[in-house]
Amino acid sequence: MGYWAEKTEAFLRVSAILLLVLTACLVAMDTQTKLIMYTYAKKATFRDLKALPVLVYIDGVVAGYNLLQLSRCSVSACYKGEMQSPLLKNLSWVHFLLDQVAVYVVFATTAAATQASLLAVTGSKAMQWMKLCGRYTRFCVQIGGALLCGYVACIVLVLTSFLSAYNLFRLYSPTKFMQLKSKQ
Amino acid sequence: MGYWAEKTEAFLRVSAILLLVLTACLVAMDTQTKLIMYTYAKKATFRDLKALPVLVYIDGVVAGYNLLQLSRCSVSACYKGEMQSPLLKNLSWVHFLLDQVAVYVVFATTAAATQASLLAVTGSKAMQWMKLCGRYTRFCVQIGGALLCGYVACIVLVLTSFLSAYNLFRLYSPTKFMQLKSKQ
Repeated sequence: MGYWAEKTEAFLRVSAILLLVLTACLVAMDTQTKLIMYTYAKKATFRDLKALPVLVYIDGVVAGYNLLQLSRCSVSACYKGEMQSPLLKNLSWVHFLLDQVAVYVVFATTAAATQASLLAVTGSKAMQWMKLCGRYTRFCVQIGGALLCGYVACIVLVLTSFLSAYNLFRLYSPTKFMQLKSKQ
Repeated sequence: MGYWAEKTEAFLRVSAILLLVLTACLVAMDTQTKLIMYTYAKKATFRDLKALPVLVYIDGVVAGYNLLQLSRCSVSACYKGEMQSPLLKNLSWVHFLLDQVAVYVVFATTAAATQASLLAVTGSKAMQWMKLCGRYTRFCVQIGGALLCGYVACIVLVLTSFLSAYNLFRLYSPTKFMQLKSKQ
């Protein structure tokens, strides 16, 4: 069975790891120094907005989690056929729930970082917050690229979570509610 | 079949609608007027932060979508048993994808609104953005309550999306990749 499922899952997880690491690196290595009034240099880093360090840590943790899942993929592929039905069900539930947590956490952090960065681009007249991207253009473009990369990572993670939902729920009977079915 | 599944889905969708509408109302009706230096009155509304009107619209649209799904539930329950397998599969895919879009959009908007509100609570020293919740305490507490309610709505929507994933993927064979199975 699941030869194509295993291959697709491994491919998706490798892409997710690469994209998450790329996002984290793009954000974390982004700095720009500007002279203000020819006197002192001010440096913009990703620590200026609290949402960006959080994005870096979360992306790192989820990349690590996917690496673990990837090693599990390569090990479990050999003896999945012999696995007992209830054990397979419980394991599938754990993978399903972990994948769901991973995708929602990454998605929320990326959305929050986008909101914070948008405020830095547009400012807010009502709140008397000023724009900051006029001064640090290169810095802001790099953050924008990182966020775009983060959204692609989210899409890949969503597809991974679809696959783990598929692997879980296809174990259930199509006619009886929440009952496992015999293999066919 | 699916008697309990139908009941659970209807219950989840009704809760989601109530929570989404409550969130939208709490945000949209939140205003506070303050006298500044005893001279002119300044009014804080949810339009001061762009993320909040977006949250109101999105929550309204998703509540409407769930209302449509709810009416579909009550109609389709009667003749689902007679439905042909491929048609049932296609319909299940549509519901699954729409539910996924709904939950991710609401979740992202709530996360973005939370980030914007957190910036209003904490300010940002590096960006020279000032705190604004010291002045408008009641306004900020109400937004906080609305966001909490929004997260509960997200959890209910996530459970709904689990149910629609279950309804879709249990149509597939547990052993052959992406093949439908005969009813059992």
